[in-house]
Amino acid sequence: MNCAFALDRIRIVLSRPSHPGNIGAAARAMKTMGLTRLWLVSPAAFPDPVADARASGAGDVLASARVVSTLEEALAGTVLAAAVTARRRELSLPRLNARAAAAELVPWTERGEIALVFGNETSGLTNEEVGLCAMPVTIPTSPDFSSLNLGAAVQLLSYELRMAVLEPAAVYTGDPQPQPATHDEVEGFLAHLERAVTESGFHEPHNPRRLMPRFRRLFGRVRLEKEEVGILRGMLSSFQRKAE
Amino acid sequence: MNCAFALDRIRIVLSRPSHPGNIGAAARAMKTMGLTRLWLVSPAAFPDPVADARASGAGDVLASARVVSTLEEALAGTVLAAAVTARRRELSLPRLNARAAAAELVPWTERGEIALVFGNETSGLTNEEVGLCAMPVTIPTSPDFSSLNLGAAVQLLSYELRMAVLEPAAVYTGDPQPQPATHDEVEGFLAHLERAVTESGFHEPHNPRRLMPRFRRLFGRVRLEKEEVGILRGMLSSFQRKAE
Repeated sequence: MNCAFALDRIRIVLSRPSHPGNIGAAARAMKTMGLTRLWLVSPAAFPDPVADARASGAGDVLASARVVSTLEEALAGTVLAAAVTARRRELSLPRLNARAAAAELVPWTERGEIALVFGNETSGLTNEEVGLCAMPVTIPTSPDFSSLNLGAAVQLLSYELRMAVLEPAAVYTGDPQPQPATHDEVEGFLAHLERAVTESGFHEPHNPRRLMPRFRRLFGRVRLEKEEVGILRGMLSSFQRKAE
Repeated sequence: MNCAFALDRIRIVLSRPSHPGNIGAAARAMKTMGLTRLWLVSPAAFPDPVADARASGAGDVLASARVVSTLEEALAGTVLAAAVTARRRELSLPRLNARAAAAELVPWTERGEIALVFGNETSGLTNEEVGLCAMPVTIPTSPDFSSLNLGAAVQLLSYELRMAVLEPAAVYTGDPQPQPATHDEVEGFLAHLERAVTESGFHEPHNPRRLMPRFRRLFGRVRLEKEEVGILRGMLSSFQRKAE
């Protein structure tokens, strides 16, 4: 695999970072591993001289950072998103450790851009944010002291991604791969599904019973292909027409 | 291997660190990975409130740190010492990357204590210091920007040592696993799906367009859970009732 090409298709997304110093540390950590695409979702302070100082020689990564207001915007156009989370969630998928996740993520760069999402320093990612990502990832810290700071977490994952690019897995990737659905296409399907099950009475918005998070978990896990999204939406439309 | 036992026999040695903040960051990085034995060779400032602040919850690692005046003292009693160095030296041994080094180092903890030595932030290790260590180690950074700070270097090596001790399963096994659907349950759902899409007109049995094989591929790939089969069948029933 072309190393620079693969690394160039990886977005590091920091959601709602509180401290500009951590943004700078993340930029420096990324650049030491050859990553350059930094996305910031509603940062508390950016640009900021503290971020510039901590970035050291990685000011170019800060200068080209994309600032957006929602995680959805940061994930638009990606083919796979992973959420770094220290805790287990209800209804979540099994978490992969950082090394296994990097090995799974890197081959997806042949199909399009991927994203690795880090949460706020104090509160982490919300369940909704984790729900937007198809792969939960965890760093195997000591159970007695799991207090990795944000820069350190970005450093470790960036390192594992670089190692996975340098030493690709022994899985044969020459087989033609079907085209994955983009993040936007999957979200469009989930919105259509929600309308259809609301119309049919299966989903009661005032009594949601965690139905939509369960669907999101199921259809996130399967990594839908572009053609499959078309089939599923065609099926939903046929049910809606029949009911009219 | 007993994890705590192995990690307890690893010394992290910082030689002539200039900035107390980096000593604190190193202590925090070590503790997140279960390492506790910090040795400081002629630190410019220690103890220091800046080190305490950066250590965050790892003040105990700082409190038990051993301060000595020469690297020889820090290595006394060890059975193997490795030197972390970014540059190749004349006459030096071939450098191992961080992962390979961790895999070679960890089994030595069964024989005694080992040490991993990090140099000064600006000048690195001297040739004499590297010469005291039997194994040169390097972190495979980007050739364009190899500026890892001392805390980040300690974080990455501590992580690799922990991974080498744990050899953990790819999937984080602390998470409870949901109950998978049985083969019969999945087949029951696919038969239900076929009836529903035939009634809605989306599936035309005389012109099947490979629809059912595509559904079978999608829902086979996702490894449905028992509860998910119940939800999907409930959804199909709601569409069928609505159409009546």
